[in-house]
Amino acid sequence: MTAVSVTVPATTANLGPGFDCLGAALTLYNQFAFFQLPDTSGLEIQVEGQEAERVKTNSSNLVYQAFVTLYQHLNQAPPPVRIQIQLGVPLARGLGSSATAIVAGLMGANALAGSPLGMPQILKLAIALEGHPDNVAPALLGGCCLAASSTPSEWTICDVPWSESIVPVVAIPDFGLSTQAARAVLPQTCDYQDAIFNTAHLGLLLRGLETGNPDWLRSALQDRLHQPYRQSLILGYEAVQAAALEAGAYGLVISGAGPTLLALAEAERAKEIAACLQAAWQAQGVTAAVKQLQVSAQGATTTAA
Amino acid sequence: MTAVSVTVPATTANLGPGFDCLGAALTLYNQFAFFQLPDTSGLEIQVEGQEAERVKTNSSNLVYQAFVTLYQHLNQAPPPVRIQIQLGVPLARGLGSSATAIVAGLMGANALAGSPLGMPQILKLAIALEGHPDNVAPALLGGCCLAASSTPSEWTICDVPWSESIVPVVAIPDFGLSTQAARAVLPQTCDYQDAIFNTAHLGLLLRGLETGNPDWLRSALQDRLHQPYRQSLILGYEAVQAAALEAGAYGLVISGAGPTLLALAEAERAKEIAACLQAAWQAQGVTAAVKQLQVSAQGATTTAA
Repeated sequence: MTAVSVTVPATTANLGPGFDCLGAALTLYNQFAFFQLPDTSGLEIQVEGQEAERVKTNSSNLVYQAFVTLYQHLNQAPPPVRIQIQLGVPLARGLGSSATAIVAGLMGANALAGSPLGMPQILKLAIALEGHPDNVAPALLGGCCLAASSTPSEWTICDVPWSESIVPVVAIPDFGLSTQAARAVLPQTCDYQDAIFNTAHLGLLLRGLETGNPDWLRSALQDRLHQPYRQSLILGYEAVQAAALEAGAYGLVISGAGPTLLALAEAERAKEIAACLQAAWQAQGVTAAVKQLQVSAQGATTTAA
Repeated sequence: MTAVSVTVPATTANLGPGFDCLGAALTLYNQFAFFQLPDTSGLEIQVEGQEAERVKTNSSNLVYQAFVTLYQHLNQAPPPVRIQIQLGVPLARGLGSSATAIVAGLMGANALAGSPLGMPQILKLAIALEGHPDNVAPALLGGCCLAASSTPSEWTICDVPWSESIVPVVAIPDFGLSTQAARAVLPQTCDYQDAIFNTAHLGLLLRGLETGNPDWLRSALQDRLHQPYRQSLILGYEAVQAAALEAGAYGLVISGAGPTLLALAEAERAKEIAACLQAAWQAQGVTAAVKQLQVSAQGATTTAA
């Protein structure tokens, strides 16, 4: 194969009490095409879609970095390549755009190299590149995934069943937030009771996601480990959260490191909730794109380009 | 009804990373019979079984305290009663013996009063008496239960599916450990990464318990919030844990506040693991009773006495 197309879903991580462990793939996708070029060629990167101009097109491009990493892992020189990127996932908004780049670069390289690596090996490389599995695991595998560290460098990943009755609604504001800034506000220690609170609520969330039980979901989406520290970084958070709950959402959480906010709701309420999120943020002077999505059962997929 | 018999299962709480939230009913039972006496009679309490002499037989008896609490809740005077207790659950060993007393007292009183209260109301009274739901919820409802606080006085309880392939093996040493002493060693704050560790592993444990996946269970039974503080209170803990893992257990955890230790294992290994736990503790000079149990799907049951 000398040309391959890779489609990778957006992901939402840090789901409610599931900070640094729970994420899900969403039905919003980036597409990446890889064309192996003659040996005398150089790297070519083309990007289309919203904010395409912000994506680097030299060898520091994250897709290409991941592409090179896989060949390094194989002890092979990467071939000259043209990479065409079609952005459907907004950049730096907490929807896993960098995870799509890492997963695509690895999958594209693996396909062009004749598919020497299996999914577990690709996942391991993706986690090493991203630094943690929260986004790359669901981006690669699809569905909702939980990741628990066994050792600092080894992870156990399991699937988390997600009831089809639960609809994710995302509200993506027109401002970015760096993951670095969002990390900087987190503490080194926490209240012991808060640790127990999140542990218990993560369990309740898994049962709520599996069964769709509204009472469990309403209680389960509470968090004391990351959102209390981060919500002040997101203009209008409290107003948007209040609007979501008022409109009947099970809860509203920060997607990844933000600033995108994610509401979970029953299907019948999703449209109204989407409108309320947008209006509540607009009232704070923030323009937000709202989308009623689903969890993408499919992870990254590869087809001949 | 003027005579009722109540059977209540033992429970294991604080299951691995599930400190203060995850517990399960076990196939080991206390039996309680309540006989309403003529108005001129006094309280009579009879206790049989191991360490029966340690159970108080006056009005400070915990079964009777719970019995009275239910009548107080009904704004009625409790009738004179004879309570016969048959102990199958060892006292003060971390197997929920006090929860059996509370649940039995409430269920017995409710039956004699004509069953005015439903399970949710009885559970609420039981939680208030015990102070937390970890043991009383599975003792009353059966199976494995997760409890998450909504407000300091309100709890959301959900069932946790438990694969029949996972066998609990308990090793009950011949010394007691007060819950108060076990509470005293716990900290007020904890490392932020440890909080995330337990959150993620609790999620993995729920998925492992549901599916029986051995890899998930082996990773999931790790804990950083209570066992590191408590294990030094239990003579021989490390040796018994090492023996359990060596014999192929998924993990070994402290049952409740201890000192009973609980191994989870596949059925085929359970008998050998039981023998290894006993031998390892014996080598430390501790005589322990080991029992290969099941999770009791049945919670507290009431029949005419």
